[in-house]
Order: sequence, then structure tokens, then C-alpha cells
Amino acid sequence: MIGEFELIRKLIEGWKPARDVSIGPGDDSSAIVADKKRLLLQSTDLLLENVHFCKGWGTPYQLGWKALAVNLSDIAAMGGTPSHTHLNLAVPPSWSETEIIELMSGFKAMADRYGVSLLGGDLSSSPDLLVVSVFVNGNALESRVIRRDGAKPGDIIWVSGLLGSAAAGLELLKNNIVTDPQSELLNPFLMPQPEIELGTICAQNGSVNTLIDISDGLAGDLGHILEASNTGAKLIREDIPLAEDNPAYADLPDFDRFEFALRGGEDYRLLGCTPRSKFDRLNISVKNQLGRALYAIGEIESETGLRLISQEGGVEEIKAVSHDHFKRFDL
Amino acid sequence: MIGEFELIRKLIEGWKPARDVSIGPGDDSSAIVADKKRLLLQSTDLLLENVHFCKGWGTPYQLGWKALAVNLSDIAAMGGTPSHTHLNLAVPPSWSETEIIELMSGFKAMADRYGVSLLGGDLSSSPDLLVVSVFVNGNALESRVIRRDGAKPGDIIWVSGLLGSAAAGLELLKNNIVTDPQSELLNPFLMPQPEIELGTICAQNGSVNTLIDISDGLAGDLGHILEASNTGAKLIREDIPLAEDNPAYADLPDFDRFEFALRGGEDYRLLGCTPRSKFDRLNISVKNQLGRALYAIGEIESETGLRLISQEGGVEEIKAVSHDHFKRFDL
Repeated sequence: MIGEFELIRKLIEGWKPARDVSIGPGDDSSAIVADKKRLLLQSTDLLLENVHFCKGWGTPYQLGWKALAVNLSDIAAMGGTPSHTHLNLAVPPSWSETEIIELMSGFKAMADRYGVSLLGGDLSSSPDLLVVSVFVNGNALESRVIRRDGAKPGDIIWVSGLLGSAAAGLELLKNNIVTDPQSELLNPFLMPQPEIELGTICAQNGSVNTLIDISDGLAGDLGHILEASNTGAKLIREDIPLAEDNPAYADLPDFDRFEFALRGGEDYRLLGCTPRSKFDRLNISVKNQLGRALYAIGEIESETGLRLISQEGGVEEIKAVSHDHFKRFDL
Repeated sequence: MIGEFELIRKLIEGWKPARDVSIGPGDDSSAIVADKKRLLLQSTDLLLENVHFCKGWGTPYQLGWKALAVNLSDIAAMGGTPSHTHLNLAVPPSWSETEIIELMSGFKAMADRYGVSLLGGDLSSSPDLLVVSVFVNGNALESRVIRRDGAKPGDIIWVSGLLGSAAAGLELLKNNIVTDPQSELLNPFLMPQPEIELGTICAQNGSVNTLIDISDGLAGDLGHILEASNTGAKLIREDIPLAEDNPAYADLPDFDRFEFALRGGEDYRLLGCTPRSKFDRLNISVKNQLGRALYAIGEIESETGLRLISQEGGVEEIKAVSHDHFKRFDL
């Protein structure tokens, strides 16, 4: 397929939002006005064998965990609380009943962590590839929900964790360098942790102008914020928190810790923007409640485009896109 | 896969419903308490190429139409009103951008008919088969929603239209006997009509104890009602409304109008149960508002099992299952 974003534009043109729709296509999740003060958040992601995962990359349990985790991450990125899920499975003969039950047990472990209940779904056969389509509900106070389009010039850009380790894990799997599903090097890719608690802190704190989860990669997801907010940004090269180095990475062709942090996807850390005057207060709150700190990595600017600044003073205009190794695009 | 219902039991065991869940897995749609009086209805169905449809069976427009129609049908079967949808597409190289846009235009035509708005979804690539996963929201007054488990002995069992023509259309396609997507013989299979208006009448009328849409076939879906309601039933053979005969059917191997009506799926007519004393009033209301009548086809009985009665007085115990040509099972 070519021109995915153009295709999506064509697919969604002409659809008019209903009166109760607060957020339609284009954010991490949609939002419907549920009552006077609360929004119903909804998000969905489809995982397809040999596109988003391969059999044998990790256990079925890890796949079930991840299928729900990446959807909950979208709720986290709105500052919301997840509540319910639907699950569609299309199962080929190559997956055994035992493997599907194990997948469901990983899915349920993720659900139980956040009190998410299963509402339904369907199970059908598939000729050759496993399809896992997940749908989640969440909710947020209308006055607290955090959209993509709120970034303001002067805002500090921050991320909530090290970047690039999920993409490195994927490459280790693809290149057959690490295959043990329990390896710590694969954990960021196989069992991502949705930042539900941090999303809630951001919503309560009130100082986060915009929030997104890093599924496509830092450059690509920051690009979504910049486009939605009609702003530009500078990133400080040395401030971007890179995945810890590891001897195993030396065997990867074209491995570059910085490039993986900048453009590799699937880290599922949160990327937010906060006015400079309020950042310290937010960070103290995060430290107190989560025992870890946010990383300030740059600043929103009124001039559009994305600039990478290095400590020696170099300025490089870079593209706000990611590797898109999975070719996934949100409607 | 073997033992799908046993597998589903295993997949959903151990999940506890949250306090706001009014209807969990097992009905046409789930229901969450949205406010004091209204329920949020949610349903999802996944359509997979070469399982639920084949490329060239109908146009992409018809496929898009059907993908949403079968989901709206689940909302109709609760007596609900549909409101929003999410759409996930995984697109293989064999489907062109033009075809995907045409698919979306059929999807939107169905949506526009019922004022359904698009909230989001995702688009990814697929190695070889098209995946269409649809999610819908609807709503109903809590006091009016119609579940599967309300059938009472003495209730008249009724259906809302002719049965078997969708399954016959599928066989005509499979056997390459009729291939023109505009053929009236294929229309029931390619472009089903969800009975939203009838579902609303049933909910307002208040005399419908249970309601389901016929996706698996009359025998199978009645079986779901009987199991949920812990009752049995008799069907009057001659009262079941069969698809009109057509010379094209003569070329089908093993075609039997009655068997297709009894066990063929995908008609998407509604199947309901109403106390005998209230059936005439309901039927008059349907005639006045829709210009067509319901077909009384049998009666709920306290003795479990499903019996087929013929006018000559024969009684045959039959299985309350369908052909399951699509191997789809709701969680």
C-alpha cells in the first residue's frame, strides 16, 4: 500500500461527528460525552501475525499481555482510566487450543492489573494467520482529558522512560540474536507496561498540555503532536534517554542507540508537554508517586519543523517521522 | 480448532464483571450502565477474507456495507439504537487503494442510514488476507433492553422475515452459479439489512420477552435463547417462512428450502418471543409502522429440547444447532 496518510484522509472524509462526540478520529482514543462531566474513552488496535508479531517471538502469554497493554496505553495517553475490553480472535490451525488459552491468560493478567473487565468479542477460524483485535473503554473527567493538540510554544517536552529498547528487542528477535522470551533484552518489546498511573497523575496535576504514547517512535509521535498543535520543536540530543547499552547489540546490523531512541517504535512511554513554570512541580509529583522522574528533552517552539540541537551547538533539521516497521496508522 | 464452545468457556472463566456491567459476554451485545436509566451497548465482529467472505463475492462497497450491518444487527437484537463505530482494517497487496475506499463508502452508506459516526480505528498492512474488524456502540433504556434469557413457556416464537435466502446466496456464490453482485438472489447474503427499526418497536412495545438476530441460523439462534432461558420449544414446520423458490436453486447440490431456512445463517432477521395474549397487538404495531408482519412459527415450552411439528401431526426432536459454515462463535 502506498500513501497511507492520504488513504486515511480519504477514508475519514465526509464523516460528520455526532453531537456527543468530543474527540473523533486522530487522537490516541476517541471520546464521547458520557454524562455532564465524564467522557467515555475508546480505543482499538489490531495485531496480525507476521505483521505485528511472529509466532515464536515470545510466549502466547506475552502476546496476550501485549495485545491489551498497547490498547491500555492509548487510554493512559488521554489521562484516562481503563474499564472494559472486547476481544476478537481469528485462530489458524497452527495455534493450539492450549496456546490460545495461554494467550488469554496473559491478556487477563494485564486486565486484572487495572481492573479491566471483559465484555465480549468473537472467536472464528483463520486460514493461516492469528488475528487479535482488541477494543477498550476507559473514562476521564471532561475537564481533565489530555488531547494531542494542546502543545504551546515554551512548553517543556518530556518523556517518561528510556527509549529504543523495544525496537532493539525487535531487532534482536528478527536477527535471531536473542530468542529466550524471558530475556530482559526482549522484555520491553514483548511485555510493554502501559503508563496508566502516570497518565492519571498527569490528568490530576493539570499542568500537562498534551500527551501521547510512544508507539511509532519519539520523532513520529512528537510529529503527531506538532501537527495537531500547529507548532514546531527543538530536541536536545544529549537529553534524550537512551536504552542502556548491551554487548548483544553489537551483533545487530546498523544498530545505533540514538537512532533507535529517536525513531524506533513500541516503547509505550508517555511523551508530554508542560509549561516550563510548572514542570518541576509535575516532576516532584511523579517522583513522589512513582519513584522515578520524567526526562526533559526539548521545547515546543512556534516555528514549525523539528530541530535537533547538540551540546556543541549544532542544529539539524530532522524529519518528524518514524521507521514504521509495522506499517500501522491510526484512523 | 475443535470444541469452540468449550474453548470459549475456558477463555471467559475467571473474569469477574465490574459493577457497572449490566450484560457481559453471551448476549448479542454487552451493556454498561451509562447513567441511571440508559445502557451503553457494545458489539464487535471480525470479518476475515476466505473465512467470512471471498474477494470477488460481491463488490468492496457491499463488503463494507455488510461489515457494519452485521454489527448493527446485534444492537437491533437488544432493542437498541446504534450510535458510533470504530473500524480496523489490515490490507494486503491484493486489495487496491480504490477498493478500500469503495469498501469504506459502503460502510459509510450503512452508517449514514442510522446516523452512526466514526470514532477511530486503525489501518495496517496484511501479508495476504483482508481483515475487517468492526466495533459499534449503541444505547437503550435499561428498562427496555431485550436480553436473550427472557423466554417464558407459552410465548409465541416469531421471526421478522423469510429465512434461508442468505445461505442460498452463499451457496450460489460458492458454486459459481450466480456471480453478478447486483443479482437479487445474492442481495440477502451480500447486503443484509439490520432490523434497527423493528428492534426499536420491540423495545417500545414492551411485549417482547427475548430477542436475537438470526446470524447462525434459526435452529442455532433459537438454541441460544432456549439455553439462556432454560426452556424448550416447538416449531410448526409449515409456518416457517421459506425463501421464495427460484430456478437457479435447482443447480445447487443438496439444496432444500426448508433445511436452508432452519439451519442456514446470515439472514439477520430478528427472532423474538412474545406472550400469546400480546402478540396481536405487537404485530399490528409492526404492520402499522413497517408495512409488513411478523411470522408466528412456534411456541416456547417448559420441556427442554427443540421439537418440529408438522401439520399432519408428526413430531420430530431436532438439534438446536446450525451449519456454522463460518465457524464464528461469540465470546
